[in-house]
Amino acid sequence: MVSPISSSPVLTQDELKKIAAYKAVDYVESGMVLGLGTGSTAYYAVNRIGELLKQGKLTNIIGIPTSKKTEEQAISLGIPLSDLDTHPVLDLAIDGADEVDTYLNLVKGRGGSLLREKMVEGACKKFVVIVDESKMVKTLGGSGLAMPVEIVPFCWNFTAKRLERLFSDAAGCVAKLRVGDTGKPFMTDNMNYIVDLYFKGEMGDLKVVSDEILRLAGVVEHGMFIDMATTVIVAGECGITVKNK
Amino acid sequence: MVSPISSSPVLTQDELKKIAAYKAVDYVESGMVLGLGTGSTAYYAVNRIGELLKQGKLTNIIGIPTSKKTEEQAISLGIPLSDLDTHPVLDLAIDGADEVDTYLNLVKGRGGSLLREKMVEGACKKFVVIVDESKMVKTLGGSGLAMPVEIVPFCWNFTAKRLERLFSDAAGCVAKLRVGDTGKPFMTDNMNYIVDLYFKGEMGDLKVVSDEILRLAGVVEHGMFIDMATTVIVAGECGITVKNK
Repeated sequence: MVSPISSSPVLTQDELKKIAAYKAVDYVESGMVLGLGTGSTAYYAVNRIGELLKQGKLTNIIGIPTSKKTEEQAISLGIPLSDLDTHPVLDLAIDGADEVDTYLNLVKGRGGSLLREKMVEGACKKFVVIVDESKMVKTLGGSGLAMPVEIVPFCWNFTAKRLERLFSDAAGCVAKLRVGDTGKPFMTDNMNYIVDLYFKGEMGDLKVVSDEILRLAGVVEHGMFIDMATTVIVAGECGITVKNK
Repeated sequence: MVSPISSSPVLTQDELKKIAAYKAVDYVESGMVLGLGTGSTAYYAVNRIGELLKQGKLTNIIGIPTSKKTEEQAISLGIPLSDLDTHPVLDLAIDGADEVDTYLNLVKGRGGSLLREKMVEGACKKFVVIVDESKMVKTLGGSGLAMPVEIVPFCWNFTAKRLERLFSDAAGCVAKLRVGDTGKPFMTDNMNYIVDLYFKGEMGDLKVVSDEILRLAGVVEHGMFIDMATTVIVAGECGITVKNK
């Protein structure tokens, strides 16, 4: 389904993200328990939910944030919050993604919140993903950008090397420790490190690769979200496309 | 292979642990990179290695400790230490176990160090496990004691419930958060929690169960060491039994 966005010849990436985010919030109904995503696109969706609550157009919403950052944003907007322990089943989650393939599998976590996102979004009846068209790829890892893996800090270099060796020569995997603004290793909300995997070729069968990564002691979680998204909203120059699973 | 230990009619569990530990240290040769286990049985092995170094009967040993506790013990004994980043391949590791099944699969981690143990012992050419005979079981989980799972603290109760639900009614799994001496949740060396799984019946196919546990976002590692031990030394009233893979 494609619908025209505007007659404007050029929209910025930020404008596209906002359009996708607003479209996703159309799925939100009063009374829902909502997973609140993290990152530059999800930010617009969380803001929009706060706005509709303030206007009284949405009521009785409970948000489950996927990061400390989103928690702070939601609190500042007055969105009532809870957690997975209290609400183990969510009606809907809205979040961005770094890559989306043709089967609606995702790479997430370039923002660093992949573990909490996966916990929350794995507990949702519906998971709506919002992206601008630059995030659509044929196969995951195909953008040449990072596939993040959260690992324990203990002997991180050993784990990074083992991650590289999981993949064939054809995949050409290179693992790099993510470094934060201070020059020190980036720390996740769970006090772990992130190793970003970069690929030259295809990763192979995603489910097989997923299990192989998770079997490495030292790995906490990876950024592939396989068979999780139920809807992907893509905003592009030509309009909004809604893809359903 | 069974060899008589002594003519003493009753040996304490501690004496049996010490006998197994000393037997394991017979496998250590000068120049080896050694994984040093954690727990009451491994304690005796680490002490024995320190003793032989002091006596000059072993030289040029490098130890890789599997916990902060063992690191402290090794330092106090003057055992030179390194880590997996510097020595990604170890010649030999010696460690205890909480359960050993007939295929030499193990449950470990009742002492809380399962993740580092699995990282170190997964990098060894030989892995010698030392136990007293009370640890031998037909199937893992069969002792009615804990199978530990290291999880991130974030929404731990949600993860504990999901772990319980992985298993069939017949397995009758109950998950309990491990509590430390202070009454607060026990923290691992990696600042995570431990959930202990208790079973009434069999867990099922261990490799399948392993993958299912690791697929849960929020799980860091579990205490089943499948296909890892190369030798198990069992000390019992009737003597020492050495089981090789």
